[in-house]
Parts: sequence; structure tokens; C-alpha cells
Amino acid sequence: MSLKQAIPLDKIRYNEQGLVPAIAQDYLDGTVLMMAWMNRESLKKTLETEQAWYWSRSRQELWHKGATSGHFQKVKGIRYDCDSDALLVTIEQVGDIACHTGERSCFHQIEGQKSLPPADTLTEVFKVIKQRKSNPTEESYTCKLFAGGDNKILKKIGEESVEVVMACKDDDQEAIAYEAADLLYHTLVALAHHNVDLRDVYRQLDSRRK
Amino acid sequence: MSLKQAIPLDKIRYNEQGLVPAIAQDYLDGTVLMMAWMNRESLKKTLETEQAWYWSRSRQELWHKGATSGHFQKVKGIRYDCDSDALLVTIEQVGDIACHTGERSCFHQIEGQKSLPPADTLTEVFKVIKQRKSNPTEESYTCKLFAGGDNKILKKIGEESVEVVMACKDDDQEAIAYEAADLLYHTLVALAHHNVDLRDVYRQLDSRRK
Repeated sequence: MSLKQAIPLDKIRYNEQGLVPAIAQDYLDGTVLMMAWMNRESLKKTLETEQAWYWSRSRQELWHKGATSGHFQKVKGIRYDCDSDALLVTIEQVGDIACHTGERSCFHQIEGQKSLPPADTLTEVFKVIKQRKSNPTEESYTCKLFAGGDNKILKKIGEESVEVVMACKDDDQEAIAYEAADLLYHTLVALAHHNVDLRDVYRQLDSRRK
Repeated sequence: MSLKQAIPLDKIRYNEQGLVPAIAQDYLDGTVLMMAWMNRESLKKTLETEQAWYWSRSRQELWHKGATSGHFQKVKGIRYDCDSDALLVTIEQVGDIACHTGERSCFHQIEGQKSLPPADTLTEVFKVIKQRKSNPTEESYTCKLFAGGDNKILKKIGEESVEVVMACKDDDQEAIAYEAADLLYHTLVALAHHNVDLRDVYRQLDSRRK
């Protein structure tokens, strides 16, 4: 799609200050990175330049996100909601840092503790696996896999893929979901073991959709 | 975490109308389902009941989402952003319908066409695979897999899992990402072939994190 035509500027219902909330979301794992405000002019600039422009309420000026930090937001897609008073901006965040604090997302704390906001399930599981790798505990099954190295991990990939095959041959939907979960989990362990980021796998899949 | 303690009610910076924007996001695939407004009272009710309550600006009243439609939102987590003037609510959407139009998400159109808002990469790829299944084209590789049925699809799962194993044994990070993408893709095709929803796999993975 052409971004310029994505949003009819006059279709949007701006508030009394001429602003509309814009949610910026990571294009790969769905993490909500920030919420800021756009006016008609910043929305126009966003559509024209394919980079996010907001309206800074504190500075009362157009705000080209990344102009000072270098953390530009490349706009992959943009849409408005059913009553045309909110925008959802799908972005590739340059530097993977959206927040002025240097964190990936502005929603980076919970109960005062640093904590990344939730992404999709696979990414969340991958986060836990990486934590297990850096902070091993004896009881953890994941840690036992890491301790066993490639031969232990890869044997499981063989085993779980065969179990997916058998569940499919049985056309047992519950078993298929269960075994596919097993296969995905062990694949994530293999990625973490080799320091491959799940985002690189997502990028690979994303590039094939073009 | 206890939801009640997740947000200190007085920490939030409500606007001149006493409202704060709240983004509701699916807990499994990261899809943004809606953006609505909360005041102090609706936030308090949300934390107490673990279901989403908003403030209806049109009706000027507390709005227990789902009270009339049955489409309640079970709150899995809630957080505020770096300047405490936006909320991110992680939800399980009862009925998988958040929008008053009957669509899953309020952000369900693009250029006037119906189109689900983006979720994570795997879910997006799965959407395309399901489209190929319902609208086959001759050139599509995915359609050829479906045409070949289980024996063609499952042979690929065997092949791709072995390729992941070999790439890991070579400790070739680029190849690992590439082959893992292949393995994930073919697993998704097997799911679609057997009418298993990727969300069921995500639910399975999510339940194991507890």
C-alpha cells in the first residue's frame, strides 16, 4: 500500500487541541513501544516521509522522532480505529530504543521494577529461556538442556519434530498443538544456545512475505 | 503480581477531563484491540475486578466493557508509561471481539477495506498461509504443499528440522535463523492443514510459563 493514501487527513477526529493519540507498535513482535500525539500536520509529515512525526505537547512543536537521538521510527503501516480518533502506527524502531530514557519501550516498568512490556507468546517464552541461560537454576528443564549442549538440545528437536509428524498422521488436533508447542520451545532453546535472536528469524519470515 | 498493587492510582497523570488513554492489547499475539479512556474510578475498578472498565466519553459514565455484549476483557497485566499518562492493558478478550462493530479489533480497516491489525510475525505468516488454503493459486509454494497433503508437508518438517540441527552443529548463526524460519513456516502449514489454530499453540506455551 502507499502510505500517503492510508489515512485521509480530514477523516480523523482530532480533539479540542487538534490532537489524536498515536500508538507506536513494533512490526515484528507487536510490542507497544510508545503512545504520543499527532496533529494534522505531523500526521501529514508521517505519511509523506514514512517516518513518525508527533506533536510535542510540552514543547508545543512538531517533533520528528529521532531527529536528536537518531532513533527514527520507520513507518511500515498506519491505520485508524472505528471512530477515527486513535491511530495505530506499525514501526521499525531504529536502534530498538523508543523511550527517551534509553529503554526500548516507554512502558518499561511494572511496580517500579524494570520489565519489558509484553510481546507475542513466542517472544515471551524466548525471554524466559534467555533468562534461564544467564541465570541457571538446577531444577529448570531449560537449564538442563543448556547444560547438555547441542547434542541434548538437537536430539529433542529431532524427537519433537517426529512427534508433530505422528500427531498430524493421527489427525489429533490437541496433540498437534501440544507437540508443535514442544517443537517451537526446543527450537527457541537452540536459538538461544547459539546466540541467535528470535527477531532474526522473524526478519527472515517477514522478508519472505514481500 | 497482584493487579491491585500494579498501579498507584495517584501516580497517574490524568488529563484536564480526569482521563488517561488505555491501550488494550491481546495477551497472546500482541494485537492492539482498542484504545479507550479510563478515569481514576474506572482504573480502580479495573484493578479490583481484573476486568477492564473504561469511562465512556459519549455517555459520560463508567463503562464495564462487556456488560451488555458479554465481551468482557480479562486483565492479565497493566502498566503505565514513562511519564505516567498512558496505560497499557494486557487482556484476554472474551469472544475475541473487542470492537462494537463485531470485529476483533477497533483498528480493523485500512484504506476502507477490512483488514485485521498486525500481530506478531508468526501470526501474520499464519494468516497468509490460511488465505492460501482458502484461496489456492497455482504458483504458490504453500498451495503446492497443501495439495500434496500430509506426506508432502510432514516430509518437509523432517527435512527442515534436520537442517536446523546441521546449522547448529556448524554453529552458523545466519543459517540457523534461516533454517529455523523454514521449520517454523512448515510447522504453520501443518497446523493450517489440520485446522489447528496457532493461538492454541500459543495458549499451550503460555500455560507452561505459569
